[in-house]
Amino acid sequence: MQFKLNDYCEPDFSLDKFVNSPDVILEHAPKDMVAPLGFHATSIFPEYYKIDGKWLLAEDSRMDCVAIYENGKIYVREFRNIRGGDAVVMGRTENCQEGIYVHADCFRSKEQKNQEAFAFRQGRSRETGFSCDYDHINGLLKHEKENGYVVWVLGPACTFDLEARKCFSKLIENGYVHALLAGNALATHDLEAGLLGTALGQDLYTQRPHFNGHYNHIDTINKVNLHGSVANFIEKENIQDGIMYSMVKSEVPFVLNGSIRDDGPLPDVYEHTYDGQDAMRAHLRKATTVIGMATTLHTIASGNMTPTYRVLADGTIREVYFYTVDTAEFAVNKLGDRGSLGARGIVTNVQDFVGNLCKGLGL
Amino acid sequence: MQFKLNDYCEPDFSLDKFVNSPDVILEHAPKDMVAPLGFHATSIFPEYYKIDGKWLLAEDSRMDCVAIYENGKIYVREFRNIRGGDAVVMGRTENCQEGIYVHADCFRSKEQKNQEAFAFRQGRSRETGFSCDYDHINGLLKHEKENGYVVWVLGPACTFDLEARKCFSKLIENGYVHALLAGNALATHDLEAGLLGTALGQDLYTQRPHFNGHYNHIDTINKVNLHGSVANFIEKENIQDGIMYSMVKSEVPFVLNGSIRDDGPLPDVYEHTYDGQDAMRAHLRKATTVIGMATTLHTIASGNMTPTYRVLADGTIREVYFYTVDTAEFAVNKLGDRGSLGARGIVTNVQDFVGNLCKGLGL
Amino acid sequence: MQFKLNDYCEPDFSLDKFVNSPDVILEHAPKDMVAPLGFHATSIFPEYYKIDGKWLLAEDSRMDCVAIYENGKIYVREFRNIRGGDAVVMGRTENCQEGIYVHADCFRSKEQKNQEAFAFRQGRSRETGFSCDYDHINGLLKHEKENGYVVWVLGPACTFDLEARKCFSKLIENGYVHALLAGNALATHDLEAGLLGTALGQDLYTQRPHFNGHYNHIDTINKVNLHGSVANFIEKENIQDGIMYSMVKSEVPFVLNGSIRDDGPLPDVYEHTYDGQDAMRAHLRKATTVIGMATTLHTIASGNMTPTYRVLADGTIREVYFYTVDTAEFAVNKLGDRGSLGARGIVTNVQDFVGNLCKGLGL
Amino acid sequence: MQFKLNDYCEPDFSLDKFVNSPDVILEHAPKDMVAPLGFHATSIFPEYYKIDGKWLLAEDSRMDCVAIYENGKIYVREFRNIRGGDAVVMGRTENCQEGIYVHADCFRSKEQKNQEAFAFRQGRSRETGFSCDYDHINGLLKHEKENGYVVWVLGPACTFDLEARKCFSKLIENGYVHALLAGNALATHDLEAGLLGTALGQDLYTQRPHFNGHYNHIDTINKVNLHGSVANFIEKENIQDGIMYSMVKSEVPFVLNGSIRDDGPLPDVYEHTYDGQDAMRAHLRKATTVIGMATTLHTIASGNMTPTYRVLADGTIREVYFYTVDTAEFAVNKLGDRGSLGARGIVTNVQDFVGNLCKGLGL
Repeated sequence: MQFKLNDYCEPDFSLDKFVNSPDVILEHAPKDMVAPLGFHATSIFPEYYKIDGKWLLAEDSRMDCVAIYENGKIYVREFRNIRGGDAVVMGRTENCQEGIYVHADCFRSKEQKNQEAFAFRQGRSRETGFSCDYDHINGLLKHEKENGYVVWVLGPACTFDLEARKCFSKLIENGYVHALLAGNALATHDLEAGLLGTALGQDLYTQRPHFNGHYNHIDTINKVNLHGSVANFIEKENIQDGIMYSMVKSEVPFVLNGSIRDDGPLPDVYEHTYDGQDAMRAHLRKATTVIGMATTLHTIASGNMTPTYRVLADGTIREVYFYTVDTAEFAVNKLGDRGSLGARGIVTNVQDFVGNLCKGLGL
Repeated sequence: MQFKLNDYCEPDFSLDKFVNSPDVILEHAPKDMVAPLGFHATSIFPEYYKIDGKWLLAEDSRMDCVAIYENGKIYVREFRNIRGGDAVVMGRTENCQEGIYVHADCFRSKEQKNQEAFAFRQGRSRETGFSCDYDHINGLLKHEKENGYVVWVLGPACTFDLEARKCFSKLIENGYVHALLAGNALATHDLEAGLLGTALGQDLYTQRPHFNGHYNHIDTINKVNLHGSVANFIEKENIQDGIMYSMVKSEVPFVLNGSIRDDGPLPDVYEHTYDGQDAMRAHLRKATTVIGMATTLHTIASGNMTPTYRVLADGTIREVYFYTVDTAEFAVNKLGDRGSLGARGIVTNVQDFVGNLCKGLGL
Repeated sequence: MQFKLNDYCEPDFSLDKFVNSPDVILEHAPKDMVAPLGFHATSIFPEYYKIDGKWLLAEDSRMDCVAIYENGKIYVREFRNIRGGDAVVMGRTENCQEGIYVHADCFRSKEQKNQEAFAFRQGRSRETGFSCDYDHINGLLKHEKENGYVVWVLGPACTFDLEARKCFSKLIENGYVHALLAGNALATHDLEAGLLGTALGQDLYTQRPHFNGHYNHIDTINKVNLHGSVANFIEKENIQDGIMYSMVKSEVPFVLNGSIRDDGPLPDVYEHTYDGQDAMRAHLRKATTVIGMATTLHTIASGNMTPTYRVLADGTIREVYFYTVDTAEFAVNKLGDRGSLGARGIVTNVQDFVGNLCKGLGL
Repeated sequence: MQFKLNDYCEPDFSLDKFVNSPDVILEHAPKDMVAPLGFHATSIFPEYYKIDGKWLLAEDSRMDCVAIYENGKIYVREFRNIRGGDAVVMGRTENCQEGIYVHADCFRSKEQKNQEAFAFRQGRSRETGFSCDYDHINGLLKHEKENGYVVWVLGPACTFDLEARKCFSKLIENGYVHALLAGNALATHDLEAGLLGTALGQDLYTQRPHFNGHYNHIDTINKVNLHGSVANFIEKENIQDGIMYSMVKSEVPFVLNGSIRDDGPLPDVYEHTYDGQDAMRAHLRKATTVIGMATTLHTIASGNMTPTYRVLADGTIREVYFYTVDTAEFAVNKLGDRGSLGARGIVTNVQDFVGNLCKGLGL
């Protein structure tokens, strides 16, 4: 299957419904972090708002936020980022009744829409065939390497296996990873593997427990803290492999977010939850593909911040792909009701998934 | 089954191994957040350290932390709470070789130890019978109501059902809840139910979607932000039921922790991850029973901070019970390797679990 | 919620599409077990076939079978039950084009149909609220006790817990069970509990393993074989409690089907798979409610044989309810695409489910 | 990792416990299908019985059966295969007290036994690293191709994906499959794919539903019934690919067992459950490796019939490997308490598993 991006179908603003639509109503936020009652909430789709007779696209969106008009542009902001007095878009209709148009089916041909009607209600399960998805994702990644921005969202499972850890390093070193979003655990166990050859005290290959191996991850954290950063630790302790090693060596940015179950944490970890959320969104604002693997928390967090479209530097609008990979159907299907061809789940062990990608990409 | 706490078996310090043990070695932390190489890490069990010929118990412990000697006492601190110069306990043996004694089997009779050898390797599954656990937990809760401190750790599922939400309110109002640890979602959807009768836009009872119901949770957040706190929101919006309503009305403390997938967040939510972790531990330091329901993240976080014993105000030492309740075996068994009678998993829907508790407690 | 059956909406055969419809085409089966190419396959819905200008209802149907016209009536038969020469209904349209009318939405008001459009695509999960379902099922069972035929389909989990086993016995003894479909394991472990107080060698209440307890289930099987039947075993060994005990005592029929993983089997077990399937269908032909608990195999088997309607003795047509109860969403949702209000899943432990029923029914 | 079979450690029969052991007691079965009370039940391990002063090995064993002495040899028979008068081994001790010796640790070096003590209590999960298992199984399969008998046990998931179906065919055609045990569904959907390009009506590659695709599997069954057998169907309908195609073409034997949820069934399916069980055991008696994929029922059935050792034609005794592959931990760990290095679980999608095998074997 040859990979090909779908074209964006611009709304036909000459249609009556657009022409006859009133301007959108803007109201001032009553105070910081509070929207006026009746605010409009954004979706994952491109949305246009009619202001002074013109339809303005929210160029950089995410769902469940408010649209704020400022300096002639629309900004999509989280509630916590609303400032008193902001001009907030009002209204809860989607088809021009109040100057708002939500453009849900913007990347699909008529044929696809029919298929989608079915696929939409279809969960992904252990009994779904995934060959087509693998082919698609291989084509997609080859395209994105040169033309896109691929954000990977990782749970620790990926670094608990020798081959999977190697494979993910290859993906990094060959330019298929443009940013990594993860937690303290992924980095800690990956560095533990680099320093001591174990994950949570078990040999990365044989799975045999090392003597006093329950010390391994906190010894690792302690040494990273001693050296002051992941990068310094890698240099000073002469780490030679692993996901974090490849990230640092290839100078690919990563965002590590803390959680209440962390030991440590590592010095590179965001301690403030919403600073961390902002740091994630900074990458997701650029993302053209997002791949969430073996983490429900970080994947859903990313999904919440990722729209189905991206306005590129040259002004063209393209679709954003979102994959979720997990052994558990519940995790895979959590984002499935996004109602978009762009969100797909694969039910498998992420170790095999990254192995398959390497094979498919010839790495 | 009559509920009865097991007695604590104090170590017999007159035994040779204690008498002949050297004093523990203390070393100074080289800088903030860094322990000396070779530090001792704490477990979930009571640990004694020999200092100046005397065996000192770490009275307020948790696992994977360091033991610091200060002002004649042992303090158990997270790595991030180490200060440069702290006197850190060194050594990785557990049976007096280096002045450290880990007292793992301190609450069990010989008969129990034999049974435990089996139960230890036994996962809990959908095919385990739980009548005995229900009887135990009912007896335990009756005891704890007067004599203990019960910390509940809740995922949002508990407030997604009409009856379960009522049942948990009864537990609060009847004195079985001494603290609540949860996330932004539990509080948000519970308040949404109080304000609009839905959870994530679906009717709490019929599960039917309300029109524009996807606005309900963000409208709720927005109004809580408008009023400035959960308590103010409940008063001003005249909320009459729900988990948060009962918490506020009964003046039971709660800790809400933020996460990267939050909308909002509510104003009462801890934004700094490790401040939130400290706030959780402040309650878990008092906990005699912890019950984690339908949340892997918060339950494991709590498990990491909860030892198997508690030194009461009168100096007696009692065991701490830890329950995990979830439909997924993976979640239930995650804490199962704590190696303690005190950690038990129940595989069921938390809605039914809280219903059963109410029935068993006659509420 | 007051329980009320929906009325059946008879098709309006005076409509043009019915009047103008051709008679259905019948072709002779070429040989035993083989339908003519182009045969019509039945669904779970009421289906009408036009023969000699009259619309005949298939009164006793099931899905994925063939409709055979014989002696002025329509019989719905499995492929293995086709006999050479049978007059088989042909055609693959559903709206009168070939004399076939599939009447899918026959029990729903217009309001319900709208809701259903949503509910249809909605899986049941650990985060669904089930209070409404419990209320419905309680009302349903009270109605069925006097007016219906409730078929229960059980996996062994139900007899692995002391209270659940008692509760199910109460359901039997109080007239809420009209037939039981299960496997060799349910009966074996239930009888093991009656004889030795264990299930698979573990104490039914404390879950502690008995000495040499792995002998318990085969000792039980051996004794049942010695006595020649479950009923004789119960009498001769003086069994006093349990699901099978209550079935025998209350003279409620049961069908036990063998499987390739059986030990034994018990003498009452069907050894021939399709004789067993026929025995199941004999009860499911009468079923007005089916409740499948903790068994994917038997529940799906039953679902395949159960239509959404039943023609009662007095000729009225009523809907058939189908519940699936399991801790695993995958199992619960397997039958969810039946496209009918009659098929509902509940995600919980069956132990708690039967406990809740007893409480709701006042047993 | 170079693959190497462990040597069998023959018991040292010159030890006192063997010399001083009494002969085993034999009692006659009171009637068909019934063992004398106090019968000995076999395990998955090699067992020796002392008869006339000599220790006889049960050469062809399985668990939970009885040992019968006949014509100077020990036969291990299911309860249903006991005949009245059979001489049954009595006793429930395992260490020579009653002439019975169960030789559990017969393939492990001392070092392995220590590791095993840990591994034994360790479940396999989505967070286990499986590289070592993949290497082992690749080495194992290369060895077995020439020297062993590999029995594959398959659920239908394997044929629901284009690549997985191709990969399994390669395994067959290259001599890595010596027998296949499956159900009606695996064969039906595989043949549906060969005939119509779908599985359950969905395109094998794109997963898009075909028009009237719910007819596809019953049309397939009907045509197989028309032709009288799977082999005839493949020939007459000119099927060119698939698992069943490769089995027939490569003349590898298969056993298809019926179940109560079958449509059809296909003519090649065993209709009598215990005839089917016997047919499975006929292959498992020869098995040196068993790989169960995506089927709990058939895998556990096979596990119950498979001992940890095999007496080869030349009299040497070798270990038998047993793998379980599934996305669900519950399924994977069901057989994990066999207490043997020979039973290993891999948590992944079987599609990826067979793909990995092909890659590892250079196919």
